[in-house]
Amino acid sequence: MTNDQPPRPSRRGFLKAGGAAVAAGASLGAGLATSQPALAKAPAPGTEHDPQLAVEPFYGAHQGGIVTPQQSHTYVAALDLTTDKRDDVIALLRTWTEAAARLTRGDTAAALPTGDAGDNHAAPDSGDVLGLGPNALTITFGFGPGLFTHEGKDRYGLAARRPAALVDLPRFNGDQLIHEKTGGDLFIQACANDAQVAFHAVRQLTRRAYGVATMRWGQAGFLSGPRGQTPRNLMGFKDGTNNPPIANPQSMNQFVWARATDDAPWMEGGTYTVVRRIRITLEHWDNTELGFQEQVFGRHKYSGAPIGSKNEFDAVDLTAEDKDGNPLIPENSHVRLSNRASNNGAQILRRSYSYNEGTNFYIERWPPWRQETEYDAGLIFIAHQSDPRTGFIPINDRLAKFDMMNQFTTHVGSAIFVVPPGAKPGSYIGAGLFET
Amino acid sequence: MTNDQPPRPSRRGFLKAGGAAVAAGASLGAGLATSQPALAKAPAPGTEHDPQLAVEPFYGAHQGGIVTPQQSHTYVAALDLTTDKRDDVIALLRTWTEAAARLTRGDTAAALPTGDAGDNHAAPDSGDVLGLGPNALTITFGFGPGLFTHEGKDRYGLAARRPAALVDLPRFNGDQLIHEKTGGDLFIQACANDAQVAFHAVRQLTRRAYGVATMRWGQAGFLSGPRGQTPRNLMGFKDGTNNPPIANPQSMNQFVWARATDDAPWMEGGTYTVVRRIRITLEHWDNTELGFQEQVFGRHKYSGAPIGSKNEFDAVDLTAEDKDGNPLIPENSHVRLSNRASNNGAQILRRSYSYNEGTNFYIERWPPWRQETEYDAGLIFIAHQSDPRTGFIPINDRLAKFDMMNQFTTHVGSAIFVVPPGAKPGSYIGAGLFET
Repeated sequence: MTNDQPPRPSRRGFLKAGGAAVAAGASLGAGLATSQPALAKAPAPGTEHDPQLAVEPFYGAHQGGIVTPQQSHTYVAALDLTTDKRDDVIALLRTWTEAAARLTRGDTAAALPTGDAGDNHAAPDSGDVLGLGPNALTITFGFGPGLFTHEGKDRYGLAARRPAALVDLPRFNGDQLIHEKTGGDLFIQACANDAQVAFHAVRQLTRRAYGVATMRWGQAGFLSGPRGQTPRNLMGFKDGTNNPPIANPQSMNQFVWARATDDAPWMEGGTYTVVRRIRITLEHWDNTELGFQEQVFGRHKYSGAPIGSKNEFDAVDLTAEDKDGNPLIPENSHVRLSNRASNNGAQILRRSYSYNEGTNFYIERWPPWRQETEYDAGLIFIAHQSDPRTGFIPINDRLAKFDMMNQFTTHVGSAIFVVPPGAKPGSYIGAGLFET
Repeated sequence: MTNDQPPRPSRRGFLKAGGAAVAAGASLGAGLATSQPALAKAPAPGTEHDPQLAVEPFYGAHQGGIVTPQQSHTYVAALDLTTDKRDDVIALLRTWTEAAARLTRGDTAAALPTGDAGDNHAAPDSGDVLGLGPNALTITFGFGPGLFTHEGKDRYGLAARRPAALVDLPRFNGDQLIHEKTGGDLFIQACANDAQVAFHAVRQLTRRAYGVATMRWGQAGFLSGPRGQTPRNLMGFKDGTNNPPIANPQSMNQFVWARATDDAPWMEGGTYTVVRRIRITLEHWDNTELGFQEQVFGRHKYSGAPIGSKNEFDAVDLTAEDKDGNPLIPENSHVRLSNRASNNGAQILRRSYSYNEGTNFYIERWPPWRQETEYDAGLIFIAHQSDPRTGFIPINDRLAKFDMMNQFTTHVGSAIFVVPPGAKPGSYIGAGLFET
């Protein structure tokens, strides 16, 4: 391909990162002729608003990628631990933490070889994002139930430290879970404003688990939102209008962040994350009347307003009735069933992405019951909450039973993870679990 | 999701397009409060360089998406015709042409319903990209061999009009083609600088083929290149350095555009497109020594320079030798085998994308022969040429036999299409085939 676009600044932090010089060998020279020689703390003049150069902090009280303004791409993955050694797990988490901190700065996962000396070794980074910026990359790690207990065995001496809130998800009505897309001992979520940057991060990290953990499932996702507006999912409806506001710390403390508890004193500032792969039968949906689509959601499609209202952010009035006394927002609509008023005030922070994995052969479950190749596309539903027992589980139990949307959606993958708080520089993600 | 980014101009051309007013009902109002009321020919002040608003022409001597500077995302799909009626095919192509012209302007595939009148009908557009810009969307249509002859039958009276250059691809060494990802009677390629915009386009078009054609395969792709530089594929090497230059019409006329021939007088300005789904064993590749990776490619990884040279665009000197008299660029390297000097001067225009479809269970074919879940990722190889008999076929025949890269790649999907020239406004893609 010949690329005629104007030059943009190259991958910041490639040659120096975080104040510590990273050696870059002579072999890098030619390809990086336009590289900036150092990672300045302030962006170069004129690049302040270049989204390619945006950096999200890795270290802090919370992990990134939870209340971070949602980036346009993700790659999520789960791994299964194969080691019996607690120290292997700690070493992996240390390695992951260090590599993730580098990657989020726009750096390679580890320093590249200098000169020809490294030619006889595999490079520590695949190099496919050289020249790209950090693109607001965040990397979020989580632990599945299998870290604490695996087939009844306490592999790492952590069984007694499993938080009560890390429950196994129940089987929900209609679940058609595929084993290979469900569960996992370790979770990585990489989000960035570039598809390759997100995938690259997970790829460098999973490589480092060789001999300690194996891939269980991986999944790319995307989300395109007009800036400043709620993005639309593949059903064409705005998704996330009624999310608790990420800019409001009080709301986040109430609904998203876990507190230190007696059973999990290390969880202050962590969260619990549920991931569901939800296939949407787009062909069926696209042939559904607009009016019925709106009844299913309980919102108008184009404006995003609750049915009977004018504007997207108008309050959802579940008591509003039409002239015949029927509820304007139908009893089994998605908005009513998922509304906090229907769920004892519970809220979860949804941060979902669409997925799009080509096509597969399906047997439709609606007239005319076609048997044919259709999209394997839908939603990677991702929700964060302070406690899934009062968050996702009761909300989804109600949705799984009653939501009119279920005729268009099938949950085919599922996982739950405890997401520990952020790490301090020099420490690692999960240190509190292993060391306190 | 709450989106804290600054507002950007909304989907241009949504309310008016191409000079013809498109009615937009009252129900659209609230969601489109920031819409520009009309599609001006000149962008609004300050938005000239907003990549979201970039528009590529649809009508013209050539179809878009061939010599168009490569966008960051694609969705490619092939369909099989199920109708026996020639008029159905023509009607579909007319519908597709009209819808594609609208979509590339950033418009919906057809006018949305006005007010409540349309509520009892399925909307003519899924609406999931409302508010987004055209994002330089191009839509390219092609015809597979099955349009001309299907199981020995001349369904549409076109068998005698099949161009000689539209050959069936031979079986290449190492091919492991999956039937469901191979072939197809009709081809759609949508490229845009946004994943959802590209998929949306194909989704609107395939919907319109209901009853006439069914989906055979679909595939999303992405490519992230630093602006002004050759992008790197998932192997971390620059991909496309030696492409014929798209900005040079003479070169495009020589290598890409077909001429009117006796057997295909309607092909002036068309091209022939080969699509190959090539899985790359990224886990194996990432554990391969950097020096060997460079031997496989025949180029240095970081600079992109031919081995023994300094700069990416240095000429590939196939005669250069090291001090022992061995060729600097190995005999079975990718660069040597695919170089035009090794192929009677033939060149093809590669315009490939990476793909990334989660994970699958694989049995590795290298030590330690792990059997485990690995990435289903690789390259959607797309190449355009004036004649595949002198382009892709001999080049790939040589590569399939000798390329060292083959130990890391597996061709699992394949298709060839004739891509007719562009349409004139009022006409349709393929009119020359059906009407002359």
